[in-house]
Amino acid sequence: MLPPTTTAIRSWRPPKPRSSLFTRGLSGLTINSGRLMETLHQTCQWGAAHPYGKSRDSHHRTIRALADSHAAKTSAATETGMARLALDDDDARVRRWFASETEKLGCHNTTDQMGNMFARQAGSLGSPAPMTAMGSHLDTQPRGGRYDGILGVMAALEVLRTLKDKGRKTKYDLGAINWTNEEGARFPKSMVSSAVWSGSIPLEDAYSLADIFNPQATMESELRRHGFIGDIPCSSNANPIGAHFELHIEQGPILEDDGKKLGVVQGAQAYKWLTVTVNGRDAHTGTTPMAARRDPILAVAKMIAASNAIARESDALASTGIIKIPPGSSTNTLASQASFSLDIRHPHDDVVAGVVSRCLESFKQIAAGDGKGVDISWTLDTDSPAIKFDPECIKVVQQSADELVGPDGWLPLTSGAGHDSVETNKRCPTTMIFVPCRNGVSHHPEEYCSPEDCAIGTQALLEAVLKYDELRATKDN
Amino acid sequence: MLPPTTTAIRSWRPPKPRSSLFTRGLSGLTINSGRLMETLHQTCQWGAAHPYGKSRDSHHRTIRALADSHAAKTSAATETGMARLALDDDDARVRRWFASETEKLGCHNTTDQMGNMFARQAGSLGSPAPMTAMGSHLDTQPRGGRYDGILGVMAALEVLRTLKDKGRKTKYDLGAINWTNEEGARFPKSMVSSAVWSGSIPLEDAYSLADIFNPQATMESELRRHGFIGDIPCSSNANPIGAHFELHIEQGPILEDDGKKLGVVQGAQAYKWLTVTVNGRDAHTGTTPMAARRDPILAVAKMIAASNAIARESDALASTGIIKIPPGSSTNTLASQASFSLDIRHPHDDVVAGVVSRCLESFKQIAAGDGKGVDISWTLDTDSPAIKFDPECIKVVQQSADELVGPDGWLPLTSGAGHDSVETNKRCPTTMIFVPCRNGVSHHPEEYCSPEDCAIGTQALLEAVLKYDELRATKDN
Ligand SMILES: [Zn+2]
Ligand SMILES: [Zn+2]
Repeated sequence: MLPPTTTAIRSWRPPKPRSSLFTRGLSGLTINSGRLMETLHQTCQWGAAHPYGKSRDSHHRTIRALADSHAAKTSAATETGMARLALDDDDARVRRWFASETEKLGCHNTTDQMGNMFARQAGSLGSPAPMTAMGSHLDTQPRGGRYDGILGVMAALEVLRTLKDKGRKTKYDLGAINWTNEEGARFPKSMVSSAVWSGSIPLEDAYSLADIFNPQATMESELRRHGFIGDIPCSSNANPIGAHFELHIEQGPILEDDGKKLGVVQGAQAYKWLTVTVNGRDAHTGTTPMAARRDPILAVAKMIAASNAIARESDALASTGIIKIPPGSSTNTLASQASFSLDIRHPHDDVVAGVVSRCLESFKQIAAGDGKGVDISWTLDTDSPAIKFDPECIKVVQQSADELVGPDGWLPLTSGAGHDSVETNKRCPTTMIFVPCRNGVSHHPEEYCSPEDCAIGTQALLEAVLKYDELRATKDN
Repeated sequence: MLPPTTTAIRSWRPPKPRSSLFTRGLSGLTINSGRLMETLHQTCQWGAAHPYGKSRDSHHRTIRALADSHAAKTSAATETGMARLALDDDDARVRRWFASETEKLGCHNTTDQMGNMFARQAGSLGSPAPMTAMGSHLDTQPRGGRYDGILGVMAALEVLRTLKDKGRKTKYDLGAINWTNEEGARFPKSMVSSAVWSGSIPLEDAYSLADIFNPQATMESELRRHGFIGDIPCSSNANPIGAHFELHIEQGPILEDDGKKLGVVQGAQAYKWLTVTVNGRDAHTGTTPMAARRDPILAVAKMIAASNAIARESDALASTGIIKIPPGSSTNTLASQASFSLDIRHPHDDVVAGVVSRCLESFKQIAAGDGKGVDISWTLDTDSPAIKFDPECIKVVQQSADELVGPDGWLPLTSGAGHDSVETNKRCPTTMIFVPCRNGVSHHPEEYCSPEDCAIGTQALLEAVLKYDELRATKDN
C-alpha cells in the first residue's frame, strides 16, 4: 500500500502525459483529462437542454440581444442538462460518433440485436477469449445531466485512446460498450438491453416496448429506423464478455460529504417497486361530512407518510415519485381514485421484504380508518434482489484506489441505483467505480462531476482494467 | 301549524291535478310531477353521458347485438349521468329549448351580457317592480348527474306551467332564471355569471376565462359563437330581481340519513380555497439518503394528513381534490415540486380562519421536518364568508315545508356548496330549498333524486313563491 497521492491528484490539471505521477504499482500511463472533458462536452451538443447558471443567463442575454463575452459563452456552453432519450435523433448522432471514434482507434466494432455497441481493441496475446469490457450508457433522462452514463462511456474511450497513444496493449482484448436505453425513460424499462443480453428479458418483450409518449414508436421500430439492429445476437452466450467495469457518478452525496474521491462498489441494493391503488367515491367537498367520505387522496397521503416512517425504522429507503389522480379533478370534489408508486430499498433482501410487508399491513389499516373506508389494491412491478459484485474485480479497483488517492481517499459503497453492471454481473465478473457528484444530484440538469474527479475516476478505471488484465494472464497460466 | 301530510305526499304519484291534496294554508294548486320528470329527462338527452346500471347493461347488450326489452330500454334511458359543460353545443341546445318553452307560456324573455336567461311571467298587478325569481343552472360537471342545477330550472318551469294551466297569476311578476356556467367546470370560476350580476366579478374577467382544455375558447367567444350575448347589462342594478328562490338537491347525506323530505336552507358555509406549493429537489430514490432529501411529495402527504386532523378538531371540513406533480415523474426520482388544493369549510367564518391558520402553521413545521427541508408557499384562491339567507324568504319556505311534510318532515340546513343563490343573496332576498339525493352523492353520474322527492321540492317551491308574493303585497300596502 502506498502513501496517499491525493495532493498530486488535486493539482493534476492539466495532465502532463509524459511525466507519470503514478509509480510503484501504478501503470505509468496517465489519461488525458483535458481530452476527456473536451470530448464529453463536445458530444453533449447532441441532446443539450435545460440551461442553468451562466448558460441560462447567457440565454437571457442572447434574447435581449446584448453583447456577450467570449469567456461567459465558453463556460456557459457546459452549463446545460441533457435530454438525449434512447434512440432519438440525438442519441443516434452520438452513437454514430462513438462508432467512428472507436474505429479510428482500430477497434473491431459490432452491434447486437438491441443496438448494444461493442468496440474491441485487440490485445497482445491475440487471444479469442472474451474482452475485458468498460461499459455504460449514452442515453439520458428527459431532464438529465452530462455525467450519468455518459462519463462511463467517455472514460472507456479515453482509456482506449491512452493505450493507443502510448502504444501500450493489454494482453487480452479490451473494449468499450454503449448499452442501449439504460435509463428506461423513453422505453419504460431500465437497463433493458443489458437485461436482454444477460437473458433476464426476452428480446421480443424489449422490442415491443413503446415510447411512453408515442405508442407508434417501439424499441424495434426505432432501432430499425436508425439502422441499429446489428447482426449478432443480443446474448451473453453468443457474445460473452470477460469482465465488466463501469465508471459512474455516485448519484448520491456520500463521497462528497465524506470528502472522498472514489467509491469502490461492492454491489447493489435490493429494491421492490409497487403501485398502490386506492378506490373511494367522488363526492362534493362542501356537502359530504367527514364520516360519510371514502376519500382516496387522504388515504394515499397517510400511506405515503406511513411508508416513510416504517422504512426509517429499518434504515431503509422508501420513496414515492408518482401520485396519480383521475383527470378532471377539482378543488371541490373528492377524487374517486388515487394511486402512487412506492420504491423500497436496502442492501439486504430480507429488510426490503419486511418493510414492504409492514407497509402493506399499515395501508390496510389506513384504508379502513377514515369515513366509510376505501378499497386498496397493489401490484409488485419490480423485484430486484441485492447484488454482490465480483471479489476479484472489486479487489483490482480497491488496489487502484489505494494507489491513486490513498486508503483514506475512497469508500466502499453499495450502489443505490440500478446499472447495466447489475445485469452483466449475472454473466461475468463485474464491478463499478463511483466518483462524487455535486450535492449528490443526478437525473437533473445541474448534475455535475468536476474535471478533477472525472479524471481520477478515469485513471482508476484504466489502472483497474490493466490490473485485471494481469490477473487474467496469471490465472490462465 | 298543520298535522303532517307526509303520508299524502308519499302516495302522491301520479298527481291528480283537479283534486287538491293541500288545504288550509296551501295554495290549492298541485304541480304535475309526471310532466316535471318527463321534461327533466327529455332535456337530459342533451349532454347525456356515463351510463350506469341498466343503461350500461343495455349499452353492453346493444354492443352484443342482443334483443332488448322495451321496458329495459325505457328505464335505462334515465340511468346515465351528464356531461353538459357550460356553453358547449348541448348546453346551447337546452338553453334554446328553455327559451322556447318559456315563450310558449307567454313569458317575456331577456338575456344579459353573460348569457343569463330571465323568463318573466306577468303578474296581475302589472307592477314594474322586479320579479320574484326561481333560478338555478342547466350546466353540469364533466362527470355530473341529472339533478344538480337542472332540477331547479325544471322546477321553476313547472311552477310557471302550473300557474299558466290553472289560470292563476301571482300579484307581482314571477320568473325563472338559468344562470350561465354555475359549475365553473369548463370556464374555471364557479357561479361566475351570477357573480358578475351581483357585481362581485368584473364582466371583463368573466369574459376572459378560458376553457380549461382549449385556451382558444373563452367565455366571451363561446357566448358569441352561440349568439348568447344579450342586450341587457349583466348587473343587479340595471336588471334587479325581487327575490331569489332556488330548489336544489342537498348534495349531502343528511336529509336521507334523517329520513327528511325538505331542507330549509338558512345560509351557506364559509369556505377558503388554497393552493399549497412545495418545492424540493428532484433526486434519485435509490442513491439519496433520507437525511439528504428535499422531498415535496412526502411533505405534501404529511400536510394533507395534518389538515384533515386539524379540521376534525374543529368539526370543520378539510378536503384535497387535486394533487399535482411535474410531468415526466418516475418511480425512481423524487419530484422537484408538488402542489395540492385545500378546501376548508365551516358554517362560521372564525372557525374557517382558525383552521386555515393552524394548517399553515403545521405546514411550516412539516416543511422543515424531513431531510434538508422543503420550501412552501401558498395562495388563497377563494375566500367565501359565511352567508345568511333572508329571514322572510326562509320563513315562507319553512311554512310551506310545515304544511307539506309536517314539522318533522324537514330540517334547517346550511348549504355546504356554493350556489348562484349565494351571489343573489348579496343583492336581493334569497333562500334555497333542498331535497334529498341518494347516498348524498352529487357531481357524479349516479346522482339521483326520486320522482317523489323532486315533486315535493317543486311543490314547496310553488308554495313558497306564492306566499312570498302575498308577503310582498302586504308590505307594499
Ligand atoms: Zn446511469
Ligand atoms: Zn348546482
